[in-house]
Amino acid sequence: MNDEDVDLLQAPLAHHDGSGCYVSNSRPELGTVVEVSARFADSLHVKSVYVRVVVDGEPQYRKAKVSRHHAETAETWWTVSIDIINTLTSYRFMAQTDRTTLWLNGAGLHEHNIPDAQDFKLSVHHAPHWAKSAVIYQIFPDRFARSRSHPLPPYPQWAIPAEWETPVAANTPDGVHQVYGGSLWGITEKLDYIQGLGANTIYVTPFFPGQSNHRYDASTFECVDPLLGGNEALKTLTAAIHQRGMHLIGDLTLNHTGISHEWFTTGLSQPESPEAGFYYIDRNPPYSYACFNGASSLPKLDHRSPQLRRRLYSGSNSVVARYIRDFGLDGWRIDVAQAAGKYHDIDLGHLVASETRKTMDQTRPDLLLIAEHQFDASAALQGDGWQGIMAYSWFTKPIWAWIGPYQDGNSWGAPGEAESIGGNELAQMMQEYASLIPWQSYITSMNLLDSHDTARFRTISKEFQPLGIALLMTLPGIPSIFSGDEVGVEGNSLEAGRQPFPWDKHQWDVNTYSLYQQLMTLRANHPALQDGGIRWFNSDTNSIIFERADNTETLLIEVSRAPHKPLISTVNGTDVYGGTDLIAGRRMPSEGPSFHIWQVS
Amino acid sequence: MNDEDVDLLQAPLAHHDGSGCYVSNSRPELGTVVEVSARFADSLHVKSVYVRVVVDGEPQYRKAKVSRHHAETAETWWTVSIDIINTLTSYRFMAQTDRTTLWLNGAGLHEHNIPDAQDFKLSVHHAPHWAKSAVIYQIFPDRFARSRSHPLPPYPQWAIPAEWETPVAANTPDGVHQVYGGSLWGITEKLDYIQGLGANTIYVTPFFPGQSNHRYDASTFECVDPLLGGNEALKTLTAAIHQRGMHLIGDLTLNHTGISHEWFTTGLSQPESPEAGFYYIDRNPPYSYACFNGASSLPKLDHRSPQLRRRLYSGSNSVVARYIRDFGLDGWRIDVAQAAGKYHDIDLGHLVASETRKTMDQTRPDLLLIAEHQFDASAALQGDGWQGIMAYSWFTKPIWAWIGPYQDGNSWGAPGEAESIGGNELAQMMQEYASLIPWQSYITSMNLLDSHDTARFRTISKEFQPLGIALLMTLPGIPSIFSGDEVGVEGNSLEAGRQPFPWDKHQWDVNTYSLYQQLMTLRANHPALQDGGIRWFNSDTNSIIFERADNTETLLIEVSRAPHKPLISTVNGTDVYGGTDLIAGRRMPSEGPSFHIWQVS
Repeated sequence: MNDEDVDLLQAPLAHHDGSGCYVSNSRPELGTVVEVSARFADSLHVKSVYVRVVVDGEPQYRKAKVSRHHAETAETWWTVSIDIINTLTSYRFMAQTDRTTLWLNGAGLHEHNIPDAQDFKLSVHHAPHWAKSAVIYQIFPDRFARSRSHPLPPYPQWAIPAEWETPVAANTPDGVHQVYGGSLWGITEKLDYIQGLGANTIYVTPFFPGQSNHRYDASTFECVDPLLGGNEALKTLTAAIHQRGMHLIGDLTLNHTGISHEWFTTGLSQPESPEAGFYYIDRNPPYSYACFNGASSLPKLDHRSPQLRRRLYSGSNSVVARYIRDFGLDGWRIDVAQAAGKYHDIDLGHLVASETRKTMDQTRPDLLLIAEHQFDASAALQGDGWQGIMAYSWFTKPIWAWIGPYQDGNSWGAPGEAESIGGNELAQMMQEYASLIPWQSYITSMNLLDSHDTARFRTISKEFQPLGIALLMTLPGIPSIFSGDEVGVEGNSLEAGRQPFPWDKHQWDVNTYSLYQQLMTLRANHPALQDGGIRWFNSDTNSIIFERADNTETLLIEVSRAPHKPLISTVNGTDVYGGTDLIAGRRMPSEGPSFHIWQVS
Repeated sequence: MNDEDVDLLQAPLAHHDGSGCYVSNSRPELGTVVEVSARFADSLHVKSVYVRVVVDGEPQYRKAKVSRHHAETAETWWTVSIDIINTLTSYRFMAQTDRTTLWLNGAGLHEHNIPDAQDFKLSVHHAPHWAKSAVIYQIFPDRFARSRSHPLPPYPQWAIPAEWETPVAANTPDGVHQVYGGSLWGITEKLDYIQGLGANTIYVTPFFPGQSNHRYDASTFECVDPLLGGNEALKTLTAAIHQRGMHLIGDLTLNHTGISHEWFTTGLSQPESPEAGFYYIDRNPPYSYACFNGASSLPKLDHRSPQLRRRLYSGSNSVVARYIRDFGLDGWRIDVAQAAGKYHDIDLGHLVASETRKTMDQTRPDLLLIAEHQFDASAALQGDGWQGIMAYSWFTKPIWAWIGPYQDGNSWGAPGEAESIGGNELAQMMQEYASLIPWQSYITSMNLLDSHDTARFRTISKEFQPLGIALLMTLPGIPSIFSGDEVGVEGNSLEAGRQPFPWDKHQWDVNTYSLYQQLMTLRANHPALQDGGIRWFNSDTNSIIFERADNTETLLIEVSRAPHKPLISTVNGTDVYGGTDLIAGRRMPSEGPSFHIWQVS
């Protein structure tokens, strides 16, 4: 219903989202009342509007009133209050026109009634306030910085020592055993750099001892790996981070441990031990155990064991609680969350998420909980589970598919050629995923162009890196930067991307660094980019246009991967980035690759 | 992507569903292997097809092979096997063409990757085999038949005796208290009639004592209401039904009881009793308790009480198990399932459904469990909960909105004018809801044109009643008839529709009766109408076209609410109902209201 005249810049005919523009309180408590508003184009000839809200499983309707008319855009705003009775409040709008009944949900406007899955959703479970202005810097600690003040510790047997300049032995058996000697001490010494870049939150991949440089094969949760500086180094790091008003997120795998984990060795050798119940061990010949992704070095945890849950994430003696309380972590990133608790006819996925969340809520009120979930995580993002995910599904993948189809290999397990999509599909994918979860889960998710688990974004689409950075800093969600991206580090595979950070500035791409810095500053100065609402305007194959707005300002963002047919603007806008103003009735820019940001209200 | 040339009859460009045409075993067990097939039009130029199946939370891809080419329709079938590892197997197809990557899920074909909610789904939890050929006759026992052999029992105090010819006191305070004296004995005496019509399953609204003629306000679950003939009458009825190879479904409310229920009176007067924990009683002044829909006569049950769960639906001493074991019921219809277990910050909805299901599975292997759920029930239809629902959301409501917008009043709580939709929207609504649930949950749901909870369908759209009957007997799902519909009983509201059955044949609309009978016979003779797959062809505002097919035959069904532009047929078809054959290249019928059924393969 959106683009009868594709030559004109066109806003959606109706809109609501969970931001402060449309919801009087995006972080409601049980028992409170929230006002929700939706805007409808006058061209729809809406006569009456109701909100349909599900209470205790039954829909109720409440009549909305006209609260505002916007002559300039020919839109009417309708407002109605809803009671927050359930922990998750699911609602949509019904608009009656002369002609028909229209329904507005998170996927847009519909000419027939629809199922509830894409209803707007308000949760009473909230992420910390600081999340909305967080910018995450992701560190693979072995590769970020050696300490100048603390000598390298003795290396364990599995380690293959590497000098900082040694090439990464990517995609060889040595790849996971090369140790470059970066440590938590090293991070502490480089906080000026991170803060100077514009990041305020550090996510560090696992610090528990393992038998690899990535440490996703934990051998214990009892201490911080001495190779990274041990317990003392973590305490020092969190203290230094907090002194700067910054935050630190740890990384914990709930799906599996390493084969050398003390629980696994005990469980394996002592069938009567509690630890024997922590894994799916089949002692019948041929002896076997369940493992992650077919890797026998990563035995899968059996969350049916209440003792495992207590040790790992339930209650104040759990790993989840202890490293927050004793070491000062500000949150956790949970590894392989999509599979944790799921095995054959057992599905404890929701229990894993909700218990972890509960423990964190009881430990400290201001913690961030982000799950690694590379696929559709909507079931675990309904409020009482993960606060957000690493947004591979709705951010990374559509962007890779639009601006950098990676022809070198498979992405995220999909066989055949990498998917290539147009701007319309990109907008649709982002909207579809967002429509399935509460607004809070959307803006608390972690956007990323790449990570320690992917090739570097720059390598797959160097020409388009600036567009990626622009999307990272302007789309809803917490921007995150994999350390090195900002100076031009490359790598065509997961391991190749885990390069030691090039501290020699001569190796930097200074333009990329300064674009990151500039756009992070822009984001910090424009709250609309942090928790403002989003409306998708008419995108086409090579160009996408969206608006971010809060109650103080409206920004219009255009990102183009190639030259395209220009639209005629319907609004005036002041240049914020890109060098040209926007004038109603005149052509919008049509070059590409490029991006523009305008202030339009 | 569907109807570039609207003048030609057009099949979807790609298709898969859970029926035997596309799935080698629609009722798989854990640990088995199932072959799944999808068909793609050659015009798509598909080069390769993969199935994407989620295993333990992680997607896996398997390459499909060409299994068949159908020259006549220019389609290629691709087949691949998947392992049934989880209790719910979620999958979709990825097809790579020269140009792009296409995704096929339950909502159709997409040009970009999509979330998992509309994936195809195979469950290892199965409905009984007899469900697929079931035709349900719904009886409100006070209004169906008095017994000729058993005298009327003494009436309770609340009852207002009515003669069979007395008009229903609809929408007056007396409405729920009028007693006409129908009984379970009466049903037993009329089994010839029901079987003669063509139904083979009876669903009887509650037989537990209450203080109203509808009995949804149970005062005990310990016995069958003496007013209906008591325990003896129920035992006699099930025995007589089973002798005919028919089945009987009872009706149980898990959401609330009546205010006169012994549990409530005990719980209210004895704060220390277990029953005090069965309800949400707030003993602080002003004293109150939670109730259903604001009706203080219907106190809401608190499913957090394990003892309540054991008494009601968990385990062999529960009401759910006892009436199956001791009285021979073949299943339950669960009242107000959408709200059961849900109250404020408590949501035990899934527990209520899955425990009820488990108890039934443990009691007898061939039982039917259908929930009354008037809205989006997809969360409770994922296999381990309800086997099916009363399909108000995807059957009744779209049909009312398409062929009989009910202008006299509100439908299902929605305010304002009743929704009116075109045939396209009808097809989309049916497809959208079906896409969210396993195929088995779809075909095990109970289709209905009306019920004891609605106005009579005939009253809202007399001219269109034959179209409703045609849809009831040809769309996927178990057809159900509210007693009296088949002879032309009317009523413009819920209570007005609860008319005593007119046993005087002179009052019957014999054409309607014979259409029901004829189409039930047709359904019984054509298994494709029972568990065959469904493909939606190009519908328009006034006409819908769909195909039902199994491995032996293909039926094409056209239902038109008004005269419309004729399509040119692309297939030959033999008349099954409607009087004309279908000839490829010739015009299809364009009159309306009307319907046609053709055999096309």
